[in-house]
Amino acid sequence: MAENESVTAALLIIGNEILSGRTQDANLQYIAKGLGDIGVRLREVRVIPDVDETIVETLNTCRAAFDYVFTTGGIGPTHDDITSAAVARAFGREIERNAQAVAIMEAQYEHGQLNEARLKMAEMPVGSELVLNPISGAPGFRVENVYVMAGVPGIMRAMFDEIKNELRGGPPMLSRAVVTDLPEGAIAEGLGALQDRFPDIDIGSYPFYRRRRFGVSVVLRGIDEEMLARATVDTLALVESLGGEGTEESLEDED
Amino acid sequence: MAENESVTAALLIIGNEILSGRTQDANLQYIAKGLGDIGVRLREVRVIPDVDETIVETLNTCRAAFDYVFTTGGIGPTHDDITSAAVARAFGREIERNAQAVAIMEAQYEHGQLNEARLKMAEMPVGSELVLNPISGAPGFRVENVYVMAGVPGIMRAMFDEIKNELRGGPPMLSRAVVTDLPEGAIAEGLGALQDRFPDIDIGSYPFYRRRRFGVSVVLRGIDEEMLARATVDTLALVESLGGEGTEESLEDED
Repeated sequence: MAENESVTAALLIIGNEILSGRTQDANLQYIAKGLGDIGVRLREVRVIPDVDETIVETLNTCRAAFDYVFTTGGIGPTHDDITSAAVARAFGREIERNAQAVAIMEAQYEHGQLNEARLKMAEMPVGSELVLNPISGAPGFRVENVYVMAGVPGIMRAMFDEIKNELRGGPPMLSRAVVTDLPEGAIAEGLGALQDRFPDIDIGSYPFYRRRRFGVSVVLRGIDEEMLARATVDTLALVESLGGEGTEESLEDED
Repeated sequence: MAENESVTAALLIIGNEILSGRTQDANLQYIAKGLGDIGVRLREVRVIPDVDETIVETLNTCRAAFDYVFTTGGIGPTHDDITSAAVARAFGREIERNAQAVAIMEAQYEHGQLNEARLKMAEMPVGSELVLNPISGAPGFRVENVYVMAGVPGIMRAMFDEIKNELRGGPPMLSRAVVTDLPEGAIAEGLGALQDRFPDIDIGSYPFYRRRRFGVSVVLRGIDEEMLARATVDTLALVESLGGEGTEESLEDED
């Protein structure tokens, strides 16, 4: 599946609140879809706690293994916001109060409101490039191939939209989906044969269980539009040959 | 924070559909909360693709590092369901058709419906213990400290509920939350001082942004109920001393 040619990314979701189950992550899917749009393949996500050595080790593993690494969470003003310091340590860089970030925040806050805790949000590894934050001012930053963003979804999205255009992806991944009322076990054999015939199309089978009925979404992904179309036609034919009903589903309609 | 005494877990979410953004994960939070109830601390989550060597490597890293590992996804009947084989390989065990699993599935399916693809769901590493599936029959399994479960949320939840009572946790983590309309930057300094005074309570600060207003949820977690109560009272006093309004929020109400 031309894995070697693709541009890859990892996402680190940093925060005890996700691991405790208190907060439902709302960032993974937004970033995954956004990266897909520009031909960057998200290959791994790790959710890790606000623990310095865990962040440092995880970041160093991932930035060596993937073309891009994105982090969310832990860049606010409180004692548990330790991401920026950990990123600096991972890169072996000093942390400094970024002058450009301070200038943005000085313009943002009323006189006397820019206290020491808030100024902590301007502390970044030496040599960082800012990731602008049109929602609440305090920026994220980039060091080499690592983008450090806020965890609050509204702010994270605005930051991600700011940087999306500067990322360089490969050919965009196209996808189509066929939904059927057949159970997965009935189409499994035929689907495996179809995958063998279309090695450059990634065929995924996703069973669902709704209103006490099972069904399957077959998702076909690839970069060659024509081959994808042929594999989709053959999937529909497979479903019909097994006595099922198959319909093509727009992936955009699912959200 | 008594980290060394706690019982820890990692969760591996296996599936291309989460990484592509097509599917929103619905399992992490359920498992995180369920583990919290019984005093097991979820310390890391990894979302990885349906790639054999990635599953093997990730599983071997995590099962050595944590007391328990849970996996979701990739145990169905189709060609892209490769989790069971990868788990066998990670443990260096042969894979076999588990007789007990076959018996369950024979009772489940009508005559002639239990085809080769479905029987693939009975293939497990030698020596596996079954994780029962009251929803759709085909079981998951346990090998040593690794529990392998389905990815479909309805099935995963039923499987997790089946095994929850056999897990051995430490003292349950208690938590309380104080919500205030003060911005995070205003309470950061006082909150840091509070954390210093209560080193055994994990104080997290989670800003939110709703209806164009910022606010903060301060979440306090620990195993000592009385100390937690004192830290909560002091958090409310801190908020009031800064001119804010603070209310204690039931964590159960948030969902």
